Amino acid sequence: MSTETDLAKEACEACRAGAPKVSALDIPKLMTQVPEWEVVNHEGTLMLEREYEFPDFAGALAFTNRVGQLAESLQHHPDILTAWGRVKLVWYTHKIGGLHRNDFRCAAKSDQLYT
Amino acid sequence: MSTETDLAKEACEACRAGAPKVSALDIPKLMTQVPEWEVVNHEGTLMLEREYEFPDFAGALAFTNRVGQLAESLQHHPDILTAWGRVKLVWYTHKIGGLHRNDFRCAAKSDQLYT
Repeated sequence: MSTETDLAKEACEACRAGAPKVSALDIPKLMTQVPEWEVVNHEGTLMLEREYEFPDFAGALAFTNRVGQLAESLQHHPDILTAWGRVKLVWYTHKIGGLHRNDFRCAAKSDQLYT
Repeated sequence: MSTETDLAKEACEACRAGAPKVSALDIPKLMTQVPEWEVVNHEGTLMLEREYEFPDFAGALAFTNRVGQLAESLQHHPDILTAWGRVKLVWYTHKIGGLHRNDFRCAAKSDQLYT
């Protein structure tokens, strides 16, 4: 039985420079809740990436807007690549140059918007 | 005096596999109408790219939606990267693996949506 709380239900904290990055030990535990995501290393900065599929462009753009509303409500913003039939999301925390627990929360919340 | 017609006012043609790519000779002439754009070579496929700046995320997302509406109306769809304060557009024609005149038209039309 997991002792982790449900990331999708956790509130995001206001983030600041110097806030703690998630530790290398915590990443595998958090990933169990967002198994479709990948941790990638972009020039030394860890980021969370996932690509979602859609039947057309309109479906992809509608998802982009749902994620955009989420981002505005949390004041934490991903990079969103919208293309015909797919959306790629990248969550990371610019201020700390890497992954904060907020990014895993946002990944889980994004998954909930994909229906 | 240019003999080129105004790309932004040209209608897009329905595109098909085998439609002509713009020639290497035509590209510099077309670029005079979209001087903020860059022709980039992604693994052998030429594409048109431009990054637009915005004061925040909401402004960027609003532009993404204006471009999305244009794309749906033309049934020709770019890749759109939306991030805080910026949108990167990439126009090319998947069916012909490169740049059609339509892509230059769409670049010019995108510029008109950036106000």
